Amino acid sequence: MLEIVKSVEDLKKLDIKQLPELCADIRQKLIDDVTLAGGHLASNLGVVELSVALHYVFDEADKIVWDVGHQSYVHKILTGRGENFCSLRQKDGLSGFPDYEESVLDCFNTGHAGTAISAALGLAKARATANDKYNVIAVVGDGSMTCGLTYEALNNIKDTNMLIVLNDNNMSISDNVGAATLNMSKIRVGKYDANKEKLKRRLQRVPFIGKGLYRFLRWCKRKAKLRFVKNSYFDIFDLKYVGIIDGNEIKDLIYYLTKIKNNVRKPTVLHIVTKKGKGYSAAETDPEGYHSVSGVNAGCNMALDSSVVVGDSLCNLMSQRNDVVAICAAMSKATGLDVVKKEYPQRFYDVGIAESHAVTFAAGLARGGVRPYVAIYSTFLQRSYDQILHDVAIQNLPVTFLIDRAGFVGADGKTHQGLFDLSYLGQIPNLKVWTPSTYAELSQMIKEGANTDGPVAIRYTKSLSDADRSFSGNWNIVRPCRNPKLVILAVGCRMTDIALSVANDGTEVVDVTTVKPLDEVYLNSIGNAKILTLEENVVKGGFGQSVLSFIADCGLTNSVKVLGVDDCFVRHAKVEEQMQMCGLDAEHIEQIIDKFLK
Amino acid sequence: MLEIVKSVEDLKKLDIKQLPELCADIRQKLIDDVTLAGGHLASNLGVVELSVALHYVFDEADKIVWDVGHQSYVHKILTGRGENFCSLRQKDGLSGFPDYEESVLDCFNTGHAGTAISAALGLAKARATANDKYNVIAVVGDGSMTCGLTYEALNNIKDTNMLIVLNDNNMSISDNVGAATLNMSKIRVGKYDANKEKLKRRLQRVPFIGKGLYRFLRWCKRKAKLRFVKNSYFDIFDLKYVGIIDGNEIKDLIYYLTKIKNNVRKPTVLHIVTKKGKGYSAAETDPEGYHSVSGVNAGCNMALDSSVVVGDSLCNLMSQRNDVVAICAAMSKATGLDVVKKEYPQRFYDVGIAESHAVTFAAGLARGGVRPYVAIYSTFLQRSYDQILHDVAIQNLPVTFLIDRAGFVGADGKTHQGLFDLSYLGQIPNLKVWTPSTYAELSQMIKEGANTDGPVAIRYTKSLSDADRSFSGNWNIVRPCRNPKLVILAVGCRMTDIALSVANDGTEVVDVTTVKPLDEVYLNSIGNAKILTLEENVVKGGFGQSVLSFIADCGLTNSVKVLGVDDCFVRHAKVEEQMQMCGLDAEHIEQIIDKFLK
Repeated sequence: MLEIVKSVEDLKKLDIKQLPELCADIRQKLIDDVTLAGGHLASNLGVVELSVALHYVFDEADKIVWDVGHQSYVHKILTGRGENFCSLRQKDGLSGFPDYEESVLDCFNTGHAGTAISAALGLAKARATANDKYNVIAVVGDGSMTCGLTYEALNNIKDTNMLIVLNDNNMSISDNVGAATLNMSKIRVGKYDANKEKLKRRLQRVPFIGKGLYRFLRWCKRKAKLRFVKNSYFDIFDLKYVGIIDGNEIKDLIYYLTKIKNNVRKPTVLHIVTKKGKGYSAAETDPEGYHSVSGVNAGCNMALDSSVVVGDSLCNLMSQRNDVVAICAAMSKATGLDVVKKEYPQRFYDVGIAESHAVTFAAGLARGGVRPYVAIYSTFLQRSYDQILHDVAIQNLPVTFLIDRAGFVGADGKTHQGLFDLSYLGQIPNLKVWTPSTYAELSQMIKEGANTDGPVAIRYTKSLSDADRSFSGNWNIVRPCRNPKLVILAVGCRMTDIALSVANDGTEVVDVTTVKPLDEVYLNSIGNAKILTLEENVVKGGFGQSVLSFIADCGLTNSVKVLGVDDCFVRHAKVEEQMQMCGLDAEHIEQIIDKFLK
Repeated sequence: MLEIVKSVEDLKKLDIKQLPELCADIRQKLIDDVTLAGGHLASNLGVVELSVALHYVFDEADKIVWDVGHQSYVHKILTGRGENFCSLRQKDGLSGFPDYEESVLDCFNTGHAGTAISAALGLAKARATANDKYNVIAVVGDGSMTCGLTYEALNNIKDTNMLIVLNDNNMSISDNVGAATLNMSKIRVGKYDANKEKLKRRLQRVPFIGKGLYRFLRWCKRKAKLRFVKNSYFDIFDLKYVGIIDGNEIKDLIYYLTKIKNNVRKPTVLHIVTKKGKGYSAAETDPEGYHSVSGVNAGCNMALDSSVVVGDSLCNLMSQRNDVVAICAAMSKATGLDVVKKEYPQRFYDVGIAESHAVTFAAGLARGGVRPYVAIYSTFLQRSYDQILHDVAIQNLPVTFLIDRAGFVGADGKTHQGLFDLSYLGQIPNLKVWTPSTYAELSQMIKEGANTDGPVAIRYTKSLSDADRSFSGNWNIVRPCRNPKLVILAVGCRMTDIALSVANDGTEVVDVTTVKPLDEVYLNSIGNAKILTLEENVVKGGFGQSVLSFIADCGLTNSVKVLGVDDCFVRHAKVEEQMQMCGLDAEHIEQIIDKFLK
């Protein structure tokens, strides 16, 4: 069918009866392409019918905002990007997230959770200002209902005409969290499906009229739903509510979407239930494991990565100290905290997609005398900038941040890069910023966090070196040199490795374990050596500028060359390619050094 | 009475009957001291009875977290700081916000709205970890119910035993916003008071038994409330709800607080209604006007400030361009947008205390083809760091930010300083950062914002210079000098004024109108002059480091001296005193220059 359907126009020519076949074909394409190339599989398998139905019912002029965005693959296939789909998440290929530069039908870029309703409300209000007439639809997962930004947006909709499709698969990335989310829909996937199947089977056993009766009952239910169903959660926001609909039943979806499109002029929530991983049994059984797949050619050693070390080190620490607790924001597995959850459930908190609360909550815990560790990816911790500054740092509270996915993140691209943390954390008074380049350093730092006054941010890439160097509080000189001509100060594992690979005679290489404070004793000891700084972070406000500033302040005369990411956002590609794109590969750095030493 | 009551211990010795007199005395002290010294008057007048009741019922070991914190004056008076109260918000005096360094009874520092429930939940969980037994109380205004952080916290309470006192005065700083907030309590101050008074009057007219009957009915109502009242808003979070109680009736408060303290072991919301400005008729009538009073000796010229220029310039622009809209977050008056609200209600949005949503909403508006202006104070915009980066800047959307209260803010102190914006904004790709020092520049920049591709942040202090220099995109040389020995690059009005005051022969003074991008043409034109940079911002990631970095990058040889705020939080004091505390006063800068030029 995908041979025929290459655009939304083609799709609209199909008869409704042909759509299940189309859905099956799309599902097969997803399984084939994504397991090969890597990407978000389970969530996209869940929204095949929804994506088809939305484009079948709505027009190209209408605006669909995909919350979180990693479930937009089917949308991309349907909007003219099917043939290019195998380039997904690769350099110069399709983005794994909606991208306006790629297609104006990706009307709003998303990546972080919970932005869709805010953005859609903006589009709806802009429509009024411009006297325009399109429909606005936000597709939001139930995980985003734990998110403060979603709430702030819901609270501002009032009577703005827009549709929110609540795609409920009973999980955000790991299990769902929170009283409101639980109460939002008392009926959940398992129960709903089971009851429906039971009813269907029972009715179909009735001779002659069974099938018809089942259909009639379904019809009645549809009619009733559009009129009577109340949901206390959405009532609060004065939103019209329609649900719960089986989101993997294409005909139902088209029925309700058409009804809403043609008849409803009030802000409406269509609550659908979908099965994450639908149609691929491995992903259905373990949707978190198949949330994001690496592709067969990824070739990374998954046996050991930073998250494993984080989990082990924390468990170790918690076995020795009863005052240590751990917090994550809907990502217990990815951050390595699932072992903590298992071993110390009483001292483990998953707050949902609520990074701001995670941090202020940690501040409260710290004031109460315990030692909280907050594990949040670099890019998502951007949500907590004010809470780190205002709630943790001003009070100098001993909260330790475990910040994975710092630096380049590869295929996820622009919205997920960890290229800002050294700047947004480095500027906060009282906060220490540590940057391990080896697993041993990371492990030692986690231990040290609990003995340190005030807050500490430990920031690391997904993989680190297994070199045998630990953390003593000072920088680690990994390639010593007497009277060096050049000192390379490298932040993190990749930069240290590159520094070692380009180092010639007369070059000292330093593994910068602490970006804040600087190792001032070391910097005062290097004589006239020129200094090259390397970091996976924007140059502005980063490590290199700190060094530059220190040298100038002390009246030292060392020349300093700062290398990092220039003032730009870095698109999806492999990490190595991104390093190249930003001039942080060995070849380019060698050229820079040559010029610098002349 | 305040002669007798100098501590919580003294308070507990009083008979309940004596408390109304105490409240009256406290109220008088507030009016006397705050109108003289300046500070938050209306909100504190509203919570006199609540503060007395909380300390009367609960113990010193219990933890009271005051959301937003500016309503903690009565708490301060009651906890041993009454005699020192006239030093409020002055250098070395009491902070205008809870401050743990000042008293351990200020168990959690607050300043920004919506942090209290998160922090209190942390304290309650720490209590469990430490096997402790204290009570935890969060006092939260209704305004904070519009805030995503509050929602995230409510969503995580589940069955943690804590008390939330919802202090409902039907306004945050300006009018309250949002469907949820409206639905939270259908009964509002005016109506509630009116009905109660009517009933009381009517009953008391009944001869002989009228008074008794009224008391009996009130008793019934109390009993009933503790058992039956349901509130759909808090039901969602599985919280026990008690309300609505008159929060200016000390006996009622003590009755309910005691009941809850002794009998309830579930998370509970006590919903009280108080009158902002209670007991001071001017403040009752205009609570927003008396939200924060300046004190008789403040002596600032309120006729013209940045907010007035912002309002006028925006109105002007909106009269010419139909595509311009304006957004604020619960502060239409303070940001100057109240005139916009009046003149262009259809193109004005107040989203409540929801800074994150304000920005993503603006991104949606911009994608829809309109030109949003978002007016948020520098310190509160910290809440939107991720939204500026992820939703606005990545898509390079034309949103203009109007950022008042940049730099030192004086008496509000640590939690409200605008000393981080040049860093957290400067590091974001695609975002321009403009820094007017005159009203004319500000006005011109507001106009330019609508003609600029991509996002612009305009950042300014409350007062600017009325000097007659405008904005052309380049830096303004305010004191030209041929072949200067020293160039002072000054950001903002105060720094430019100081630069002019210390400039000698051979010194050129530049009003840095754009921190990003730098005026590279100018920097390349100054020959060998030494450069001194001045900014009201932390040095880390600020303007000076940008200049330093540019000079190093271009291989220029100018010496650069960077002056700004060192890596610390700056306490409350007058702005001039804070400049002195940070070495940014004329005298200190002169010394620096002397050394620098040697």
